[in-house]
Amino acid sequence: MKRYEALAAQLAALVEEGVLRPGERLPSTRTLANNHRVSPATATQALYLLEDRGIVQARPRSGFYVNAHWRAAQPPAVRKPPVKAATLDVSELVFEVLATIRQRDVVPFGSAFPDPSLFPLDKLAQMLGRSARRMDPWRTVEGMAPGSDELRRQIARRYAVQGVRVRPDEILITAGALEALNLCLQAVTRPGDVVAIESPAFYAALQTIERLGLRAVEIATDPVHGADLASLAAAIKRHRVAACWLMPTFQNPTGATMPVERKRELVALLARHGIPLVEDDVYAELHDGADPEPPAKAFDAEGLVMHCGSFSKSLAPGYRLGWCAPGKAFVRVERLKLTTSIATSIPVQDGIAEYLKHGGYDHHLRTLRGHFRAQRSQLLAALDAHFPAGTRATRPRGGYFSWIELPGDRDAMALYRAAAAKGISVAPGPIFSAQRRFANCLRLNYGHPWTDATARALATLARLAN
Amino acid sequence: MKRYEALAAQLAALVEEGVLRPGERLPSTRTLANNHRVSPATATQALYLLEDRGIVQARPRSGFYVNAHWRAAQPPAVRKPPVKAATLDVSELVFEVLATIRQRDVVPFGSAFPDPSLFPLDKLAQMLGRSARRMDPWRTVEGMAPGSDELRRQIARRYAVQGVRVRPDEILITAGALEALNLCLQAVTRPGDVVAIESPAFYAALQTIERLGLRAVEIATDPVHGADLASLAAAIKRHRVAACWLMPTFQNPTGATMPVERKRELVALLARHGIPLVEDDVYAELHDGADPEPPAKAFDAEGLVMHCGSFSKSLAPGYRLGWCAPGKAFVRVERLKLTTSIATSIPVQDGIAEYLKHGGYDHHLRTLRGHFRAQRSQLLAALDAHFPAGTRATRPRGGYFSWIELPGDRDAMALYRAAAAKGISVAPGPIFSAQRRFANCLRLNYGHPWTDATARALATLARLAN
Repeated sequence: MKRYEALAAQLAALVEEGVLRPGERLPSTRTLANNHRVSPATATQALYLLEDRGIVQARPRSGFYVNAHWRAAQPPAVRKPPVKAATLDVSELVFEVLATIRQRDVVPFGSAFPDPSLFPLDKLAQMLGRSARRMDPWRTVEGMAPGSDELRRQIARRYAVQGVRVRPDEILITAGALEALNLCLQAVTRPGDVVAIESPAFYAALQTIERLGLRAVEIATDPVHGADLASLAAAIKRHRVAACWLMPTFQNPTGATMPVERKRELVALLARHGIPLVEDDVYAELHDGADPEPPAKAFDAEGLVMHCGSFSKSLAPGYRLGWCAPGKAFVRVERLKLTTSIATSIPVQDGIAEYLKHGGYDHHLRTLRGHFRAQRSQLLAALDAHFPAGTRATRPRGGYFSWIELPGDRDAMALYRAAAAKGISVAPGPIFSAQRRFANCLRLNYGHPWTDATARALATLARLAN
Repeated sequence: MKRYEALAAQLAALVEEGVLRPGERLPSTRTLANNHRVSPATATQALYLLEDRGIVQARPRSGFYVNAHWRAAQPPAVRKPPVKAATLDVSELVFEVLATIRQRDVVPFGSAFPDPSLFPLDKLAQMLGRSARRMDPWRTVEGMAPGSDELRRQIARRYAVQGVRVRPDEILITAGALEALNLCLQAVTRPGDVVAIESPAFYAALQTIERLGLRAVEIATDPVHGADLASLAAAIKRHRVAACWLMPTFQNPTGATMPVERKRELVALLARHGIPLVEDDVYAELHDGADPEPPAKAFDAEGLVMHCGSFSKSLAPGYRLGWCAPGKAFVRVERLKLTTSIATSIPVQDGIAEYLKHGGYDHHLRTLRGHFRAQRSQLLAALDAHFPAGTRATRPRGGYFSWIELPGDRDAMALYRAAAAKGISVAPGPIFSAQRRFANCLRLNYGHPWTDATARALATLARLAN
């Protein structure tokens, strides 16, 4: 990112966070230059960029002002789902949508992934080659599930930093987090069982429930504070809930994060009923602040929390490396792993372990978090500048998705199709619900550098939504 | 392998194949030296090695003779399984056995793997590092199931060499063959369905059937010529068979290979009933002759054969790379892959594709086949020299397993335990059967270089079996 872009992102964040309100004057070019230690030319460029993006407007002989049309977006409100448990058939719709949002030439608001150029792929390649050349051939025979000792040790160290006590021998390495989530859910359920999920939920949870012949009960989920515990308690009362699959931190698609106390209560509630929690925590490292959010696993005294993580979102997309710490179901999960894929690629495990030891993961993460923070501000500022009045959006403290609620009866599926025809992807609300709810909602990705093309695409999307 | 070892292996093969019979005189040192273009010293060393191994004995002033105690092993006969379909619970036993046979310090007759030092791991590491450094970052997003185009093209070329027409876009890349087999079986069955398997069968088939809540019907299987089609036809008549999971070539554990005509009839029989065949063909490249065995897939006009292959046994153990060509169930299998593990590691796919293009795969395979051929001869000769009279053994034309039937009521599980206590692993017959049949059978691995320690361990095993 160039210096003027970085400055523009900082200013956009101030606007987006309400520090600078609509109609207020921005600092002068000279003040900006002094305070941010940039040249006056850079400060001017930053202001012009904000003007281009509709966030500020110039008033002759007076300076730059926050655009009066700009409104601080409110997050969507919680919506109560039906309390019935249902078998699912969302997969057809999800597959159709996923096929369109994976293309490189499409503006990727609908993508599930961040921009791959944000990752240290060169360094990873070096580590991969180096560790593969050094690999003891016998590791290919002995390195079955649960996985590389060194990698598990490195992961346990990161847990420790988050204040979670997980020993290396409690960790099982998997081919990405999705395999971990699948194995964990399968280890604690039988076909026909009821699984509690968020509403909206990550579509892979819906697909897994469908594939395993389970039934889903949707739990009311606040787009800011996550799954509602009263709603969960009611579901447990009404159904024999065999397991929960939840994302308490930076939930996909809303970006919601349960407050720490709510996480603690969640674990206590489930412990009272002996219900396992499959905790999908793949965005954990992508918090935007100085401190990580503790996972629900941090409060797990009973071994009921099956915590699943991944390097795909934070370090090594495409390497397909994840893990789980499945608590007391460890042996069952390990056996499922052995009978479904035997082991996770040994050179990949070794390469990532080598990177974690010597690659500078924390440095990379700081840079990555900065990108996502700036891009979030740019997306939200542009949404406010262009989208119809009454549009709501979440401003997550981590991850790279915002959940958008369009006003009234606007149809996200129609918008998805109209946008696709113009080379723009969005993830429409109904793919995140067993009952195809959230008909006027979208998940937008801010994991990609904000460019002029992005800005134009967002303006186009806004036109289509108006 | 040193020259004298290679010569000894050739001579052992002649004995084992019955070209040289017990009591017959071997060619003189000078004749051997001339015919095999080695020095007389090398020829003498080869003869001493055969003597050490109990295959020949020296008679003073006369030369070397095939040991009179040596008997050409007969293969075990076919055993009819019960015709009922059953739910399974073999996993406990299998897991127990697998844990003991994976240890490096154990003599690995029970191992499922060949010696890892027989593979070009250095070259693969180079290719892996090189291709990872060159990887287009966008491939991490776009390279979802079905997998790398270049790798699928390389695999299609190998099919073509075998005379099988499979297009690149009919191939799906998986995390090893076991994932492919699992996804294929799951794509064509529902819980409660009946699946026809061999008897004995690869234990992973039993475990998958158990995990997916299916029922198994065991098909009588000749340890030389494979699954019996009359038995299969009877099972189809009696049960609604939803799918077959068979290894028509170099079957695990027997090493059986169906004659080509039987493969053709198998495909025709299943086509008449519209029953899919999951064809496990992971040893295809490990044939011992000049020509590969055609898979059943070669005769598949209906798209009912779901052919599964792997690089784990022939090229890259521990990389976890396999594939399937699932015929008309392709889309269903692809979707299962997307919802269980999304994609197979991109750098691993690229590294193997690079090796297939530039690494010298055919050269490596010729060397590997030579090792297995020689080691098979050494194992069978030693079996004949040491094991109790009436022991039967298969002499497979590929792969690296021989199936041993001990005479009478000898107990393979007891032998397995007694051997484990002496640091020797064997794979006991009952882990290969849903009904824990084959109580007096063993699978022995000849995928490891034959050493003095191997010879001593086999003699120990023979003592325990006597």
